[in-house]
Amino acid sequence: MGYFLVIRDRHGLTQVVLESTEELNNAEILESVPLESVISVSGTVRERVDGQHNEKMATGHIELHADALRILNCSTPKLPFEVHEKKKVKETLRMEYRYLDLRHSILQRNLQVRSDFCFKAREFLCKNNGFVDVETPALFRKTPGGAREFIVPTHSPGKFYTLPQSPQQFKQLLMVGGIDRYMQIAKCFRDEGAKADRQPEFTQIDLEMSFVKQEQIQELTEQLLKHCWPESLPAIKTPFPRMKYGDAMKRYGSDKPDTRFKMKASTLSLIKLLHQIYVIPIILAIKFRCRPAIVCAKGERFARRRARHDRRGYRKTLCPWRLLALFPSSSADGSWQGSLADQLGEDCVSQVTQYMWLEPGDLLVIAAGEHIPTCSLLGKLRLSIADEMESKGHNVRGDDNRMNFLWVVDFPLFLPKEDGSEGLESAHHPFTAPHPDDLELVHKQPENARSQHYDLVLNGQEVGGGSIRIHDSNIQSYILQCVLKVDSEPLSHLLEALKYGCPPHGGIALGLDRLMAIMMGSKSIREVIAFPKNSEGKDAMAQAPSAVPQEDLDYYNVQCKQPPKTAS
Amino acid sequence: MGYFLVIRDRHGLTQVVLESTEELNNAEILESVPLESVISVSGTVRERVDGQHNEKMATGHIELHADALRILNCSTPKLPFEVHEKKKVKETLRMEYRYLDLRHSILQRNLQVRSDFCFKAREFLCKNNGFVDVETPALFRKTPGGAREFIVPTHSPGKFYTLPQSPQQFKQLLMVGGIDRYMQIAKCFRDEGAKADRQPEFTQIDLEMSFVKQEQIQELTEQLLKHCWPESLPAIKTPFPRMKYGDAMKRYGSDKPDTRFKMKASTLSLIKLLHQIYVIPIILAIKFRCRPAIVCAKGERFARRRARHDRRGYRKTLCPWRLLALFPSSSADGSWQGSLADQLGEDCVSQVTQYMWLEPGDLLVIAAGEHIPTCSLLGKLRLSIADEMESKGHNVRGDDNRMNFLWVVDFPLFLPKEDGSEGLESAHHPFTAPHPDDLELVHKQPENARSQHYDLVLNGQEVGGGSIRIHDSNIQSYILQCVLKVDSEPLSHLLEALKYGCPPHGGIALGLDRLMAIMMGSKSIREVIAFPKNSEGKDAMAQAPSAVPQEDLDYYNVQCKQPPKTAS
Repeated sequence: MGYFLVIRDRHGLTQVVLESTEELNNAEILESVPLESVISVSGTVRERVDGQHNEKMATGHIELHADALRILNCSTPKLPFEVHEKKKVKETLRMEYRYLDLRHSILQRNLQVRSDFCFKAREFLCKNNGFVDVETPALFRKTPGGAREFIVPTHSPGKFYTLPQSPQQFKQLLMVGGIDRYMQIAKCFRDEGAKADRQPEFTQIDLEMSFVKQEQIQELTEQLLKHCWPESLPAIKTPFPRMKYGDAMKRYGSDKPDTRFKMKASTLSLIKLLHQIYVIPIILAIKFRCRPAIVCAKGERFARRRARHDRRGYRKTLCPWRLLALFPSSSADGSWQGSLADQLGEDCVSQVTQYMWLEPGDLLVIAAGEHIPTCSLLGKLRLSIADEMESKGHNVRGDDNRMNFLWVVDFPLFLPKEDGSEGLESAHHPFTAPHPDDLELVHKQPENARSQHYDLVLNGQEVGGGSIRIHDSNIQSYILQCVLKVDSEPLSHLLEALKYGCPPHGGIALGLDRLMAIMMGSKSIREVIAFPKNSEGKDAMAQAPSAVPQEDLDYYNVQCKQPPKTAS
Repeated sequence: MGYFLVIRDRHGLTQVVLESTEELNNAEILESVPLESVISVSGTVRERVDGQHNEKMATGHIELHADALRILNCSTPKLPFEVHEKKKVKETLRMEYRYLDLRHSILQRNLQVRSDFCFKAREFLCKNNGFVDVETPALFRKTPGGAREFIVPTHSPGKFYTLPQSPQQFKQLLMVGGIDRYMQIAKCFRDEGAKADRQPEFTQIDLEMSFVKQEQIQELTEQLLKHCWPESLPAIKTPFPRMKYGDAMKRYGSDKPDTRFKMKASTLSLIKLLHQIYVIPIILAIKFRCRPAIVCAKGERFARRRARHDRRGYRKTLCPWRLLALFPSSSADGSWQGSLADQLGEDCVSQVTQYMWLEPGDLLVIAAGEHIPTCSLLGKLRLSIADEMESKGHNVRGDDNRMNFLWVVDFPLFLPKEDGSEGLESAHHPFTAPHPDDLELVHKQPENARSQHYDLVLNGQEVGGGSIRIHDSNIQSYILQCVLKVDSEPLSHLLEALKYGCPPHGGIALGLDRLMAIMMGSKSIREVIAFPKNSEGKDAMAQAPSAVPQEDLDYYNVQCKQPPKTAS
């Protein structure tokens, strides 16, 4: 008669058997040792006797017959939660006791896979492809544009470092400096306030090359991902499909389309079987010329309420557009329901029904308005209906291992300012080179110039972005001063550097946290980061950020303002 | 008749020959292209004709016969300095134009070697030894003790992140979390103000293991360094010698002895030939029992003025001790000169001369006072005399490739407070475990307890430090509260974590910048960092730190104090 216990280490669970009298005495002591205590066991690994095999356990065929057992460190008996119950425990509690949560097999696996991935990335880039892994500073100066940057006061009154959003400037300066292939797995900082699933610090696989074309960076990135992809997951296929920004907006209403559910009319029958959703960049012949429509096959029963609700919501916020939901043929006599149905003649109904392969129970949503915002509206609705369907148990996007990579290319170089004021701002950043065919447009019609920017999209999320950069000091100055009309003084070192023979160059940065989360099928990037902040930017375990002593503030010549009394 | 030019890329210099008429036309254009411009050349690589080989050039046996040449980006004709003149150019100017300085072969090589070193470190640890490369946060909270930490204001009034001095707490929390082998090449931050050859941000190879003993960490570190050491340098020999802290102080007057120049009396004759310096932990029989002495063989002519000067300096700052310089036998009649010489009887002189193998022209310095400070004083003098000799062209420390690694062990766990106030402070940090034989002393005579800390020293500089940590919550609390008498609230998360079954663990951190600098024979760590700050913590190229707009200060609820009017 033996005494059984299960021990856990980084590699998993193992069953231990105590048999000898001495060890059975130990067993009595063990009874009083709380869960999560640390013990040392040595003994002999033996195959379990027939009938005792546990197929659910990786080590279910063996057990350890102990001949020595020592208690190294007892846990407190009162645990905030049991490790294996992770999924049932609220995230706030798990974050507070992150060190316990880390013992769960999912986090152990995620951190191991992330480590392996990073190693292979360096192997591919540095060992196999001649890249130099260069560390760039975390203490820098304010960069114009982009996200809000954290500031770091210094002992020099009024002087602040900032924490960089990315090593963009440094990697370009390295190109000037003759390091013609640079890589870094870089920590970046953005203060975007409280946003779900964003972190104030995050990591990117950053690379830059001299004498390179867009296609070479894309191919290298594909090979990189292929090299790094975990063997435990299905291999990814390269090359990834390419889609122009304009097409992505037209077809998916998004510059990061989730291509796991299709939208081509020609694949409708298959998709309908899967209860999937598709968007058609249809040109409706009659009243709705050039106005995009979304069709949700068999979507009526999932989406009627949701669509109506969203419609009100969207209409409220996006006032000038019209969003019309139509429910074709739900009465099975070919007639349509919905706010616009009455106004359409029979011819129109039949034409649209045919053109869009509509069937009873389908949902047709038509939106009218300015092209890009209307596309975006339908794009959001498309995702929202897919979520609704999935929440009701319908598998719209396929299994977790499905990895739909996509390059989105031919972005505009500039966009109207997001705050609505007059003028243009960079669609990405001011160092992006114009498309070689659009160089003249930069001077004449900058709003129509395309860039050499490319985004890498995975399952509808942006996981990377890069571009060919401007290597000519004059063009860079012109864009900063004449197009963007920004003060170029904070960038004077870069403008100066471009004067000393900067090679043509380009690169890309991959968002490691998001890539890992999608790869591992995690709902949140917090599941692939050892010590994440919560959605408010707080470390719930160590209580960061926190107050600092007055003497530190004095040393750094800053003082805290009183919070406004009306603030919550 | 051809036209010759030399092109440079990351791999070095290559000679190009233009021969065809068309290319010779290009040559005319090339005449007007400034140095440091970027060109593209394609052609055929051929061996140079006999007599044209250049043995000083790596590519001196070949040349490129161009058949196409294109100017990609012209440099401005007025360079702040020519790249190859690096050594003649002031560092302030090189820092301002760092991107030009980076083109020099020394910096190209240093960054490449650093990249290779880091790759091999990960290969050794992660690929070969099961370590997990885990990123820990850069935004954390204030840690008690240690160096000054940079603070980062947040949008929450009065709440600050701090930039961590090291991932110490996180790596211990990872041990609690069951990641039993952790590594990271980690960026760390210390605000130590303006100190020569320190950087506000620096990098360490950081590792931690569960279920480990001091000797295992040391052996692993030795194997790691052996694995990573560049093939272009002489291989290093392991195991590294070990020396107890007490012996290091007694023999070298330093806890990081430069063992490249010896001190053993028994090897004196050899050392004298090399004009080297040695320290003897001599017990002078007569007046100077237990008082350390330093002897500089043939040191008189280098050191007489220096020693006197230093003596005054040291005496001023380290008042209660006596520093006596004696110049034995400089008059060749066996008599001594110097302030104490008259007081010594003939017997004493002859005894000491014999015991210390003194010869005409040697310098003998004796210092008396409290043991440790006296040792330190002589230790500093020893280095200062060596510097003096080297500045006069004498090779004291051997060639640049000489790598004297040394483990210093058995440090005290606590030291009297550095600021002179009553009480003890941690010799290293409060998480260091006591020596297993000294556990009782921690309670009874903490000032006499040894720690399980170990330092790795290379050529007289500390390049690493680590320890076995405290894994018992009670001992950790006792040390914080009863010995160090600090507020343990900021560490409550760590104390709490130790309660949930923390495995015994330990680790080490290697200072990568300094290790690289010594390895590459660089005078400064700035030569192994792509974009270093100057000794005042400034980025001379981009002018960081800099002012930030009022709206940023408002967002972060801080305001700048007026600098005191009397400040410079």
